Amino acid sequence: MTQDFSGWMTAVLDRTERALDHYLPAADRAPQRLHEAMRYAVLGGGKRVRPLLCHAAGEALGAPVDALDAAAAAVEMIHVYSLVHDDLPSMDNDAMRRGKPTVHVQYDDATGLLVGDALQSQAFVTLCAPAIPAARRGALVAELANASGSIGMAGGQAIDLASVGLKLSREQLETMHRLKTGALLRAAVRLGALCGGSAAGHDAAHAVAIAPADQRALDAYADAIGLAFQVVDDILDVTADSATLGKTAGKDAAADKPTYVSILGLEASRELAKSLRADAHRALEPFGARALRLTQLADLVVERAY
Amino acid sequence: MTQDFSGWMTAVLDRTERALDHYLPAADRAPQRLHEAMRYAVLGGGKRVRPLLCHAAGEALGAPVDALDAAAAAVEMIHVYSLVHDDLPSMDNDAMRRGKPTVHVQYDDATGLLVGDALQSQAFVTLCAPAIPAARRGALVAELANASGSIGMAGGQAIDLASVGLKLSREQLETMHRLKTGALLRAAVRLGALCGGSAAGHDAAHAVAIAPADQRALDAYADAIGLAFQVVDDILDVTADSATLGKTAGKDAAADKPTYVSILGLEASRELAKSLRADAHRALEPFGARALRLTQLADLVVERAY
Repeated sequence: MTQDFSGWMTAVLDRTERALDHYLPAADRAPQRLHEAMRYAVLGGGKRVRPLLCHAAGEALGAPVDALDAAAAAVEMIHVYSLVHDDLPSMDNDAMRRGKPTVHVQYDDATGLLVGDALQSQAFVTLCAPAIPAARRGALVAELANASGSIGMAGGQAIDLASVGLKLSREQLETMHRLKTGALLRAAVRLGALCGGSAAGHDAAHAVAIAPADQRALDAYADAIGLAFQVVDDILDVTADSATLGKTAGKDAAADKPTYVSILGLEASRELAKSLRADAHRALEPFGARALRLTQLADLVVERAY
Repeated sequence: MTQDFSGWMTAVLDRTERALDHYLPAADRAPQRLHEAMRYAVLGGGKRVRPLLCHAAGEALGAPVDALDAAAAAVEMIHVYSLVHDDLPSMDNDAMRRGKPTVHVQYDDATGLLVGDALQSQAFVTLCAPAIPAARRGALVAELANASGSIGMAGGQAIDLASVGLKLSREQLETMHRLKTGALLRAAVRLGALCGGSAAGHDAAHAVAIAPADQRALDAYADAIGLAFQVVDDILDVTADSATLGKTAGKDAAADKPTYVSILGLEASRELAKSLRADAHRALEPFGARALRLTQLADLVVERAY
């Protein structure tokens, strides 16, 4: 009998927390204060959307769960590093994240900087762990590094900063989000898929690859939920309160940042989120029942309240 | 006939500049301002000590030069990212680096942060380039990521920050430098070595490894020149002027940072640098003539004037 979705979620979230604990340096290892701050940033909070996507995609392609634990931990470390740096005074200067003081508020600005830097390194250390087959590490690293860098997440941050106070078109807004959040969500799906598949194309001489049809389907899925995720974020920024979000609500409007709500309005944004969910579901059709968790996660992304 | 050392240096520095240009995203690629700032930080400056070490170690172990170009570019990107973040207001707040304004002064603080973040990602992208055999990428990434993170360079930065104004023992000072600068210098040597060696131990099923005796010898060499490099840095901080250094001189003393000169005095620091050079030379004896460039680089590290 298939486990229900909430049981599956609980199990994956629990595995993820244990994997993060395992793949982060111990708090009593020197330098202790840095390691304590890294663990403060990562553990015990967050929706873990990327680890969930990584596990769901891996399950669709038959990946071993210990490899998925490592891949999911790595992508979450990149996500958390980006939040820690994003919260710094020179960026969004935010004091509250995941319901507790941000790292630079709890520690200091320099520690916030170093926590982010060290979490990025640790993500790549994690992708080279024994749980990931040696022949696949290069492909996983290339995927995550490209998604994190200047043509991915960091590039999206740069565009975001440059667009404060500007009137963006919907296309420009989409380009920004495709990099800022979309690239890492897509990487989460791809990393899971890269942990699976047959052992065949995975020898040392050939680049590891997902079958092209699977790759296209998963990318279409990831693009749809990536945008849906951002649209819902923008909706929640104006409809939810800070306590529910675990971060400061109304921040984008206050900072005069362009959002889907500011460009399309609230009702059209809600319609867009639903239509993107339908796109995501359609993209998964070739996978049939194997894509159950990916389908359910698309629903979760659109229906979430925080 | 063997090329003379200065001819070798010129050739490697030229290769390194071209490799960095090749492995950095083009300046006209979006987001342009970020890519322009990354190139501003990396290109046209710096002693390139780590690329030189990487190439010299690779030559000692017969590595293909195009693999060394990629590995050298990757380790230099990590080094430059650390300089860019180190110069930020929340860290050393330095305005001058490599003879020109630091990235956050030339651009802005947020761009300095993102340039460093994106350079770290780009280093790992570079280690997965076609020039690096697929079977070796995991080992190279693990080496560089461990050397960069909280148990390496970033950890050393954290200890450095925590020790401003404190009286450190020589042992504590060495521990700090072993992480802050030593780990990446050692990684430069190891990356070069990992690009070489026979293809034998390099299949997908087994971790890539340098022969244990070679590894011990290279590590002893790297440890000696790593410390020598720092001792000479501390000497130059009090004896050279800012124009020669290309960065602010006298900074450590002004910041009340513990240095070899403040702990041992100037003359004993000079003796220590010489004795570390002798250690480095001795470590290379098993390699014979193959270690010519490594030997000459040890001399360069100790005799440099900036």
